[in-house]
Amino acid sequence: MNQISIIGRALWVLFYCLIVLNQALAGVDPLPSWRDGTPKQTIVGFVSKVTDKLGEHYIPPAERIATFDNDGTLWTEQPMYVQLLFAIDRVKALANQHPEWKNQQPFKAVLDNDVAALLKQGEHGVLELIMATHAGMTTTEFANTVESWLATARHPRFNKPYTELVYQPMLELLNYLRANGFKTYIVSGGGIEFMRPWTETVYGIPPEQVIGSSIKTQYQEREGNPVIVRLPEINFIDDKAGKPVAINQVIGRRPIAAFGNSDGDLQMLQWTAAGNNQSLQVIIHHTDPVREYQYDRKSKIGRLNKALDIAHKDHWTVVDMKNDWKVIFPFQLQQK
Amino acid sequence: MNQISIIGRALWVLFYCLIVLNQALAGVDPLPSWRDGTPKQTIVGFVSKVTDKLGEHYIPPAERIATFDNDGTLWTEQPMYVQLLFAIDRVKALANQHPEWKNQQPFKAVLDNDVAALLKQGEHGVLELIMATHAGMTTTEFANTVESWLATARHPRFNKPYTELVYQPMLELLNYLRANGFKTYIVSGGGIEFMRPWTETVYGIPPEQVIGSSIKTQYQEREGNPVIVRLPEINFIDDKAGKPVAINQVIGRRPIAAFGNSDGDLQMLQWTAAGNNQSLQVIIHHTDPVREYQYDRKSKIGRLNKALDIAHKDHWTVVDMKNDWKVIFPFQLQQK
Repeated sequence: MNQISIIGRALWVLFYCLIVLNQALAGVDPLPSWRDGTPKQTIVGFVSKVTDKLGEHYIPPAERIATFDNDGTLWTEQPMYVQLLFAIDRVKALANQHPEWKNQQPFKAVLDNDVAALLKQGEHGVLELIMATHAGMTTTEFANTVESWLATARHPRFNKPYTELVYQPMLELLNYLRANGFKTYIVSGGGIEFMRPWTETVYGIPPEQVIGSSIKTQYQEREGNPVIVRLPEINFIDDKAGKPVAINQVIGRRPIAAFGNSDGDLQMLQWTAAGNNQSLQVIIHHTDPVREYQYDRKSKIGRLNKALDIAHKDHWTVVDMKNDWKVIFPFQLQQK
Repeated sequence: MNQISIIGRALWVLFYCLIVLNQALAGVDPLPSWRDGTPKQTIVGFVSKVTDKLGEHYIPPAERIATFDNDGTLWTEQPMYVQLLFAIDRVKALANQHPEWKNQQPFKAVLDNDVAALLKQGEHGVLELIMATHAGMTTTEFANTVESWLATARHPRFNKPYTELVYQPMLELLNYLRANGFKTYIVSGGGIEFMRPWTETVYGIPPEQVIGSSIKTQYQEREGNPVIVRLPEINFIDDKAGKPVAINQVIGRRPIAAFGNSDGDLQMLQWTAAGNNQSLQVIIHHTDPVREYQYDRKSKIGRLNKALDIAHKDHWTVVDMKNDWKVIFPFQLQQK
């Protein structure tokens, strides 16, 4: 073979590889855990539309902001919010230093493992638990506490670390959106500093793209070193009408896609829908008591009521977890 | 010429082009408006060190956070903060709707053009001006007001739009850092919604990378449309010890480089310096009364006092604007 045919052949091989690669890329389903139903088609259709440079609905990458609720949208929120389970375990761990808790609600209920009594304390009780266990230390100390807890805590039903109880179809969706130039944000009612230690590893969402509820903090010098100390005082509750407020405060742009699972996400979805651009609103509906949990307005634990009505009225996308998702959790993927 | 020599020659031309391009890239000074002194060498040395994958001080791109004060660090803050000049013009524009302002401070001082009387009102007076002119409208309306004002307002001394009174060497620095994988943030005592309408165009800093002071906002529905309304109530003052608090709240990572020009930036610089990584602290010292302004602790208008002492003690980088910068403003570049 002379040189020219070597070069020619090499070019053909390269050309062939490119064709195969292109076909492979075109053929790979970016959302393999989603069944081929309306939600998947709507999501893929929306992404195609806003990324089509020649189309009338093109939106430049800088404006492709997608916001996700966390509890019940990206990971499981049953039988309780993971952060509440963390607070309960913290109360138990700190009980020796607080003998007074034995006779003082809501701590007594926690130490007695009395769920009924704990629920009776209502939101105020939960807030007290959070304050007692989340404040009074530096931000670094708190992050370390969260990481240690997550490393050993296990879900009571699935016996898995909570960070494995994330929704596989949503992980695929986050990747798919990012591959299409979207910036993915968490906008959660949960504590911002409870989420940041692990969201980058688990969801690929860096700390600066996590928005959440927070307590006040204070800059102090301790032994000549600056620290940020967590105070027992609410700073911001990132729920309901607080979500669009926080989105405006932190991002300063209106998202073009929003994902939630409860009435706590309603205003975020409405704010997103009211923009001038094409936009996407998705509600994750918990319909699978076998693989996860089933709950909405018909059940005691459900927070999905008004948002479901508006979703139907305004033609938002409602994901039926039982029927639209082939698997729920990544470990079920391995079991298939 | 036969085919092989055509291909061969084409390959050589390509190869040569790559060498020339590479030399050109290597030879281009990324900071042409900086004189070759200690600050420039320190900045370039720092960037080389943290981006050197084989070096011991390598920092991955995700952690390359650089924070910049705005007033006096990226654009001029004399003879007054631009936002205060905006508030003053807004008072004049709204005076017809507020006949009571004629006899009511601090508005009377503004309407009488009585600077001495205005200064007598102190911080409280300034706050009242800001509240009266920045609240009571939606976020969209406020952004439009800022944009309209910036389009026509001119600096009293330079007779230029304020957005042209930005520092050319700092624009180059922002670009240089971003080209090296840094994420550039503004962390300013100024109002977040006063900055966001123009920071992307002027500095290349998108709204989600602008941190500032803010007033409270509220999500409302008006005629079925969701809006975010600005309330006459302080939400957060992003100055002094507030800066590291806001950085932690919004970014959730410690910056590795911070740039300021006053005692208002001291804690941000200290917070950055106290990290585990290699870090860079830079103070812009206003030393050029001819091309810009000269002020520090020796002058009435200066807010640079303690930070200058600590900068010297801790070997931070102090930029002498007169001697370290070849030009101050972009329009001086065109005049050269």
